[in-house]
Amino acid sequence: MSEGSEQLPCLADIQQAHERIRPYIHRTPVFTSTTADARCERKAFFKCENLQKTGSFKARGALNAVLRLKEKSGDKSKVITHSSGNHAQALAWAANMAGIPCTVVVPNNTPITKINAMKSYGANVVLCEPTVEGRKGTCDRLAAEQGATYISSCDHFDIVSGQGTIALEFLEDVPDLDAVLVPVSGGGMVSGIATAGKAIRPQLKVFAVEAKGKDLERSLKAGERLWPNPPQMVDTIAEGIRLQQLGHLPWLIALKLVEKDVFTVDNEAIIEGMKFSFERMKLVIEGASGAGVAALFSDRLKKMSPDLLKVGVILCGGNLDLDHLPWVTSNQ
Amino acid sequence: MSEGSEQLPCLADIQQAHERIRPYIHRTPVFTSTTADARCERKAFFKCENLQKTGSFKARGALNAVLRLKEKSGDKSKVITHSSGNHAQALAWAANMAGIPCTVVVPNNTPITKINAMKSYGANVVLCEPTVEGRKGTCDRLAAEQGATYISSCDHFDIVSGQGTIALEFLEDVPDLDAVLVPVSGGGMVSGIATAGKAIRPQLKVFAVEAKGKDLERSLKAGERLWPNPPQMVDTIAEGIRLQQLGHLPWLIALKLVEKDVFTVDNEAIIEGMKFSFERMKLVIEGASGAGVAALFSDRLKKMSPDLLKVGVILCGGNLDLDHLPWVTSNQ
Repeated sequence: MSEGSEQLPCLADIQQAHERIRPYIHRTPVFTSTTADARCERKAFFKCENLQKTGSFKARGALNAVLRLKEKSGDKSKVITHSSGNHAQALAWAANMAGIPCTVVVPNNTPITKINAMKSYGANVVLCEPTVEGRKGTCDRLAAEQGATYISSCDHFDIVSGQGTIALEFLEDVPDLDAVLVPVSGGGMVSGIATAGKAIRPQLKVFAVEAKGKDLERSLKAGERLWPNPPQMVDTIAEGIRLQQLGHLPWLIALKLVEKDVFTVDNEAIIEGMKFSFERMKLVIEGASGAGVAALFSDRLKKMSPDLLKVGVILCGGNLDLDHLPWVTSNQ
Repeated sequence: MSEGSEQLPCLADIQQAHERIRPYIHRTPVFTSTTADARCERKAFFKCENLQKTGSFKARGALNAVLRLKEKSGDKSKVITHSSGNHAQALAWAANMAGIPCTVVVPNNTPITKINAMKSYGANVVLCEPTVEGRKGTCDRLAAEQGATYISSCDHFDIVSGQGTIALEFLEDVPDLDAVLVPVSGGGMVSGIATAGKAIRPQLKVFAVEAKGKDLERSLKAGERLWPNPPQMVDTIAEGIRLQQLGHLPWLIALKLVEKDVFTVDNEAIIEGMKFSFERMKLVIEGASGAGVAALFSDRLKKMSPDLLKVGVILCGGNLDLDHLPWVTSNQ
């Protein structure tokens, strides 16, 4: 299929996804913080997907994909995926909810809490080398052996539609949101949020937040995928946003709907963002969420128009190894 | 004044306190957790006072006391207190809100995050030895020098009334609550919650949760204050609940309204309760809140009547030193 004819999700797809998954997921709260407002010199709104089922927003897309697969293929469906952790955990949970088998291929440096959670949902967990090829190779082989349907963590119509449901809820709670800061890995979340968000509120600015080294802005501004191949991992403490390239489908959407100005954050800013959340908001968040907080407090945002008054931040997940918090580890 | 003629707060006092403080405090959310339900074999409801202003429920009582003092004594009012941290932080915040001076006498082993927060609210912070006499002596001397009104952390009509507002909100959100587990230090919170809670719902059982060594049950069952004098501190990692004796006013109320069965929890159970909250609920809580979670998961609760189906837990605060989390420290 050429890029031009690729079917992209629209608002109605995302609304249908919401109807489908709503009985099983949490309507996550939106928190505010006067300290955060003072620090970013705007009004900040935090969408707490760290409080979502399975501890991350990934539950939305995974459940939508599994329920849609079961609608189409029936009770004999099987799913498989590879993921740095949160998508695997979410797919395991979703498959368990739907009563179908699930295999997850997981890099061998994934925090043990995530692996234990996958197992607790009854998934078959297979460890692999922490490289893009290691993940994909193992996953392709097992999918063929098992006759299982591969559910990408981002490059999938139903995943993007599921993640987009975040924007429906966020704009219901804060209808006059001016901008939203979305941590990006494969791009499933940012493309889903942009699709729903800009359809409901065209003036909403959807900004990608990336770990340093992803270099998304250069590709977005050029309108071309300038990343090196084979796909690389970015070196960041935020293990949820390590993929360098956007997935194919998210890329097509991002190019149309996501701002070309990308917020790039380094480990130091991510750790500071995490600690702010733990200390002042009493919320446990992982590195990827810390990246969103870091973008909120960045000089780049300070320099933007004061018309961007109400700024949303997606606290996308809260799964991390609590025995090795980054600010404690780095002090020793 | 003899014990018999002591004026105790009633439901109307607590309702008035709520009217007074409501514009300035958070209506804290009530969270649930399917994992917690499975583990305690009941329905658990967590009242998130860790998300309250200043990071603990103490903001309620402190603000009520300061606003009442200002009503009576006018703009020249000054306040002073001694506290293990959360009450001092709350009084500093409340005085700042009301625009009156505040001095806080704080044990020199208080976490630096709490001290910094007090200073950020403009309080005059004075360190003292971490003993009951050290705190009281320093506080009495400074109160006389400054002509400041001493606001006890627990033994004060307006403090008890303020803390009781927790129960108004909790029973609005969960009207058929059967029991509530309340961590206890000086007893301001448990006596306020018992006053409002039992007035609204007489069959509600209000249980005290104590750190091992407090020995509250023996006193409650005897109907006498059996604690050694001078007052002692209990040796616990939950620094918010270190006072051994209940305050005079809370004691009178507890004797009438709080269950004689007391939940006693040790450091190990407190740490496990804290980690459960961080890991599964993504909420940062301090040791005193961990004590409440520990009581929820205790064998003592398991052995109680299954009629106590809906059990509330007060997550009373979330202020702790994040550089030295107890489960990390104890591994090293």
